[in-house]
Amino acid sequence: MLILVSNDDGIHAPGINALRTALEKYGDVYVVAPDRPRSATGLGITIHKPLRADEINFPGSSAKGFAINGTPSDCVKLGIQALLPNKPDIVVSGINLGPNLGTDVLYSGTVSAALEGVINDVPSIAVSLASWECTDFGYAADFAAGLVKIVTGKGLPEETLLNVNIPVTKCGSKPPKVNVTRLGKRRYENTFEKRLDPRGKSYWWMGGEVMDIQAEPDTDIASVKRGEVSVTPLLFDVTDHKFMDLIKEWDLNQIL
Amino acid sequence: MLILVSNDDGIHAPGINALRTALEKYGDVYVVAPDRPRSATGLGITIHKPLRADEINFPGSSAKGFAINGTPSDCVKLGIQALLPNKPDIVVSGINLGPNLGTDVLYSGTVSAALEGVINDVPSIAVSLASWECTDFGYAADFAAGLVKIVTGKGLPEETLLNVNIPVTKCGSKPPKVNVTRLGKRRYENTFEKRLDPRGKSYWWMGGEVMDIQAEPDTDIASVKRGEVSVTPLLFDVTDHKFMDLIKEWDLNQIL
Repeated sequence: MLILVSNDDGIHAPGINALRTALEKYGDVYVVAPDRPRSATGLGITIHKPLRADEINFPGSSAKGFAINGTPSDCVKLGIQALLPNKPDIVVSGINLGPNLGTDVLYSGTVSAALEGVINDVPSIAVSLASWECTDFGYAADFAAGLVKIVTGKGLPEETLLNVNIPVTKCGSKPPKVNVTRLGKRRYENTFEKRLDPRGKSYWWMGGEVMDIQAEPDTDIASVKRGEVSVTPLLFDVTDHKFMDLIKEWDLNQIL
Repeated sequence: MLILVSNDDGIHAPGINALRTALEKYGDVYVVAPDRPRSATGLGITIHKPLRADEINFPGSSAKGFAINGTPSDCVKLGIQALLPNKPDIVVSGINLGPNLGTDVLYSGTVSAALEGVINDVPSIAVSLASWECTDFGYAADFAAGLVKIVTGKGLPEETLLNVNIPVTKCGSKPPKVNVTRLGKRRYENTFEKRLDPRGKSYWWMGGEVMDIQAEPDTDIASVKRGEVSVTPLLFDVTDHKFMDLIKEWDLNQIL
């Protein structure tokens, strides 16, 4: 089995190392990941400058590594289309330090790496540890490897990826349950903090507090809040078919 | 009416100027756009460095302008939440030089600016001129203004944006028809071109030729190929509800 591993925290992050180690038992692992943290890049790609791929060696490991001066999406594209010897059997992105839940998945570099896998017709999984402090990725990595085994056996629908969030109630502890969930919805309050620089010119930091506006029990947000693993199948088929019929009645030809 | 205009070609691009000019008749226009071209950024946002907003004056215009050192999504977020006096009635993104069709919308900065509007509960439209050469945006800008008039009158579903592509059969000419379409699907062949730098080290340019793998007559791709305007309603509700029921039968608790 040929496995492509990527992330958005950068190739030297502890989360991707734990993931690589857990997956090496199951096949040949190629790690193609950003040379530095590239969070919240969405599905951004690099088209106005060239990409570099610097080889990285992992001590005591036979996995191959490439550090890329680009986004997670660049890494997966370049990995599949230029660096790997064959098309991989699966793309696994992560393990992200911090959750990727609800609306946030649209901004997530971790999820975008998996989406890029799917766009390249490779089954893909994004994995996040829903904690900002706990850097014990051991359990999450074992979970990811177990899921990879199932997914490569059963297969996924052609354009569907799995977004996995593993909660941390106590650092290193095992969650009691796995739920298949739908995405909740989150927004941020007081997103921008305005400051003045030493020359009196204003600038803004993006931040804000999470506001979960859709977090019913069957959502990813609620599952993680309960301390249970969340697995959400995502499909980026974004045509609004329902509204298509309504807007057809607007007679847009009148604008011409 | 308060109108927020953004784009991904940068605040000094001809497309956004044409759009601003056409929209000034209908309301107060704020242009909040990247300080330089930021194509293919997806829904990337800037969280690791602060954002600046430099005021820009447009000669002979009462519109307010802000050039932002960030992505299209940053611009719309900062515009709505920090720079505009009130919540805008509509976000209009564009006019992009070049089409945004099919799968490409997931990478598009133009579409992402409109998506950011929708995430902030503002009706939003993305407009692209489906040409790489013709920089006569006059007709496309008038079309966009006409659509804004209809949309602000009739309203859009809460989370739906409109993605508009205006074809160019002859530069400056008027298309014969408007179609409400669904997204087609496109991929790129030979995406990466490998080169050697003067020191013999390899690097890759992203490029490739478009391959339309789903371009049935009711798609945006086919509409633009026929020389007809394409209006696609997009909804970024990306949970794969259909697959949820199937994967529930996998018994993922066995992994724990």
